[in-house]
Amino acid sequence: MSERVLVEQLQGRADGPVTVSGWVETVRDQKKVQFVILRDETGAVQLVNPATRPTEEPSDQDAAALALTETISGLATGTFLTVQGELKHDERVKLGGVEVKIASLEIAAAALPETPIAADSGMDKRMDWRFLDLRQRRNNLIFRVQTTLEHAMRSYWVERDYIEIHSPKLMASPSESRAELFQLEYFGDQTAYLAQSPQHFKQMAQAAGFGKVFEIADAFRADPSFTSRHATEFTSIDAEISWIDSHEDVAAMQEQLLATAIAAVKDKHGEEIRDLFGIEVEVPAVPFPRIPLAEARGIVAARGYEIPRADGDLDPEGERQLSAHVKETFGHDFVFVTDYHAEIRPFYHMRDEETGLTKSYDLLYRGTEITTGAQREHRVEVLEKQAVEKGLELEGLEHYLDFFRYGVPPHGGFGMGLARVLMLLLGESSIREVTFLFRGPTRLAP
Amino acid sequence: MSERVLVEQLQGRADGPVTVSGWVETVRDQKKVQFVILRDETGAVQLVNPATRPTEEPSDQDAAALALTETISGLATGTFLTVQGELKHDERVKLGGVEVKIASLEIAAAALPETPIAADSGMDKRMDWRFLDLRQRRNNLIFRVQTTLEHAMRSYWVERDYIEIHSPKLMASPSESRAELFQLEYFGDQTAYLAQSPQHFKQMAQAAGFGKVFEIADAFRADPSFTSRHATEFTSIDAEISWIDSHEDVAAMQEQLLATAIAAVKDKHGEEIRDLFGIEVEVPAVPFPRIPLAEARGIVAARGYEIPRADGDLDPEGERQLSAHVKETFGHDFVFVTDYHAEIRPFYHMRDEETGLTKSYDLLYRGTEITTGAQREHRVEVLEKQAVEKGLELEGLEHYLDFFRYGVPPHGGFGMGLARVLMLLLGESSIREVTFLFRGPTRLAP
Repeated sequence: MSERVLVEQLQGRADGPVTVSGWVETVRDQKKVQFVILRDETGAVQLVNPATRPTEEPSDQDAAALALTETISGLATGTFLTVQGELKHDERVKLGGVEVKIASLEIAAAALPETPIAADSGMDKRMDWRFLDLRQRRNNLIFRVQTTLEHAMRSYWVERDYIEIHSPKLMASPSESRAELFQLEYFGDQTAYLAQSPQHFKQMAQAAGFGKVFEIADAFRADPSFTSRHATEFTSIDAEISWIDSHEDVAAMQEQLLATAIAAVKDKHGEEIRDLFGIEVEVPAVPFPRIPLAEARGIVAARGYEIPRADGDLDPEGERQLSAHVKETFGHDFVFVTDYHAEIRPFYHMRDEETGLTKSYDLLYRGTEITTGAQREHRVEVLEKQAVEKGLELEGLEHYLDFFRYGVPPHGGFGMGLARVLMLLLGESSIREVTFLFRGPTRLAP
Repeated sequence: MSERVLVEQLQGRADGPVTVSGWVETVRDQKKVQFVILRDETGAVQLVNPATRPTEEPSDQDAAALALTETISGLATGTFLTVQGELKHDERVKLGGVEVKIASLEIAAAALPETPIAADSGMDKRMDWRFLDLRQRRNNLIFRVQTTLEHAMRSYWVERDYIEIHSPKLMASPSESRAELFQLEYFGDQTAYLAQSPQHFKQMAQAAGFGKVFEIADAFRADPSFTSRHATEFTSIDAEISWIDSHEDVAAMQEQLLATAIAAVKDKHGEEIRDLFGIEVEVPAVPFPRIPLAEARGIVAARGYEIPRADGDLDPEGERQLSAHVKETFGHDFVFVTDYHAEIRPFYHMRDEETGLTKSYDLLYRGTEITTGAQREHRVEVLEKQAVEKGLELEGLEHYLDFFRYGVPPHGGFGMGLARVLMLLLGESSIREVTFLFRGPTRLAP
């Protein structure tokens, strides 16, 4: 393994013997010379071989050279191989100014000759063959961006003494409503539910005195939606902190976190994102704008859009209109919408004593909601009352309510969809494009 | 929120007004003076209040002082509160050499007077009340160690250009055998299975040309075991790398990873682990010892233990014996056991062409297996043959086998149980002790 040289290292390496490994992107099989574009996880390089074609007098020819030429002619796109050859810097080579003259070539696994998808195949077809789709440079970059984004967020938290938790995804009782829960048979006659969010458990960590926690993990929603923003399984970025005065403390942490993480992405991948996605990564200024929901609805109405829902919330088009307003007015990609009515929020959101509005927010990024954050109600008698008001049965919530009976600090947190953030950051049209393997109502494979 | 001072900051702070928040660990309610030990996520501090007791002439007394004394007398263990008071350094105070004279006290949430568990309650009872159990200093430390361990591992990978993936846990077809799979009804008449490991998907990332990937995520096993090492849901640490020559390349990465991560734990928490667990964190030297399975069995037999299984593998006691031998002989806590027979390994382990033995290993840590690692068979015709030999139906494996038909590099990786590593690192007796919320056949709540 130690001999292999990554393609990105070739430019800085002196001419001479070299071993490279990767897959065949294209073959140009000309009569006198053969070119192979070999790609690995770091880039692409041109391989070259002076062709040796059979003549009428085969005895004059080098059998090895003939065989090599024939092998190259037969290479299918996608075949993974290792090449030993001579590295040569040559300004005339457009691809990085280097090429490798092939001395020998070892095929690790030959691809079938017909690739089932092309870069411009429909999304469903590309998802059927996601492992081939992911070979595209821009798709590869998406997951390198994901890596940087997540690591920057975790580093932000770890440097501030947050504790990382892994909360269970198998639950004995539904956390909120049963409507969007997957359920499964557990041992004996038990029923288990797949967690929709780590909400209850990260609150438990507050009762446990953990202070500040985070988790980046799977969440599951049995949601039959087919929008560009929904999945039945998704990666949820969650944090929860104690001793807050209001949801503002949560929002202040989240905006710092996002600004830090997006700056890390720009720093590491900004240039490549410009090349492959044609966009500039924009690091948001902090603080992000805040707009109370009632005011937000007024802004949307003033722009001539009438929100067709009766519950007082924004709808997706309303969110887009609001974000457009914020971009035009403040030049900002993010906006916290605050002061939601209790009727459109979960029972565990704390309510302001004067206004009755919840101490919560949604965070919109370029027109799409990526987060709900809130201070949680930690006074058990108020919590019970609010649950009953929402028509929930306290029986199913007993374990949850117990967390508040033995002392608990004021606390709050947020949940954020990783794929939505990535989609909006990179200007993609669907979370399917930025999810390693998407899961939806009609999509369970590969 | 900004006013709050963490307990760990008190020693370095000048005498004067201070606000601390935390929960009541103990109250010593003496006639003339009251002491409260307040704990937060960073430590414990003594609060003091000169008691004002009711006299026969109440008119002479300060009503506020009387009320404060009464409030403190009524504080239940676990009550979360915020105290404003005067910080005073005093060498005579055993707990950190500081105390806070209470000026005012605000209860965030009062605990019920009877705490349902004690530090020495049985494990099952402590698990029923895990959020209280986690308030113990040593339990809190476990999860700070977890945080450091994981962050060090992720940093190791990120610095080496690994890509972080989030593979789906919902699968259309069982990955290996159906024996230990949870299944659930999906939309329409589909059946979904919960992934036992990200094995297939991290292999898919190799076919996608990702090169090197990692994932730390949930895995599920419908395993009715009640041992100290098994759970139905656990955190799996996985990595997979391309262009390896053998499983040795995987082992070399894993030992570096573990040595780096354990060193980070020692560096950050070594002293506290010594205090609370009574053990010294030992950073393993690299390379770890390697012992072929046949030789390992010989060693165990020579120690007088006869392994009561016919398949040629080690059993748990055999693993303990082997680790004891390695500790005595090499002074090492880890050992790679290599050269397993194909019969006791999955179909996708690559086999050595000469010996027929698999290119795989188990990693034992202080007598317990924490990992299986291997080079994977990437030649699809060999893979199919090996699957059929194992009695698997190729039909259910079609999506998996497709990964190998369009080109794939030689690759391998490992899966490692986070809780096992933590358990062994800290000398705990069960993974239940080091899991935030354990899930087993009879344990789905809280």
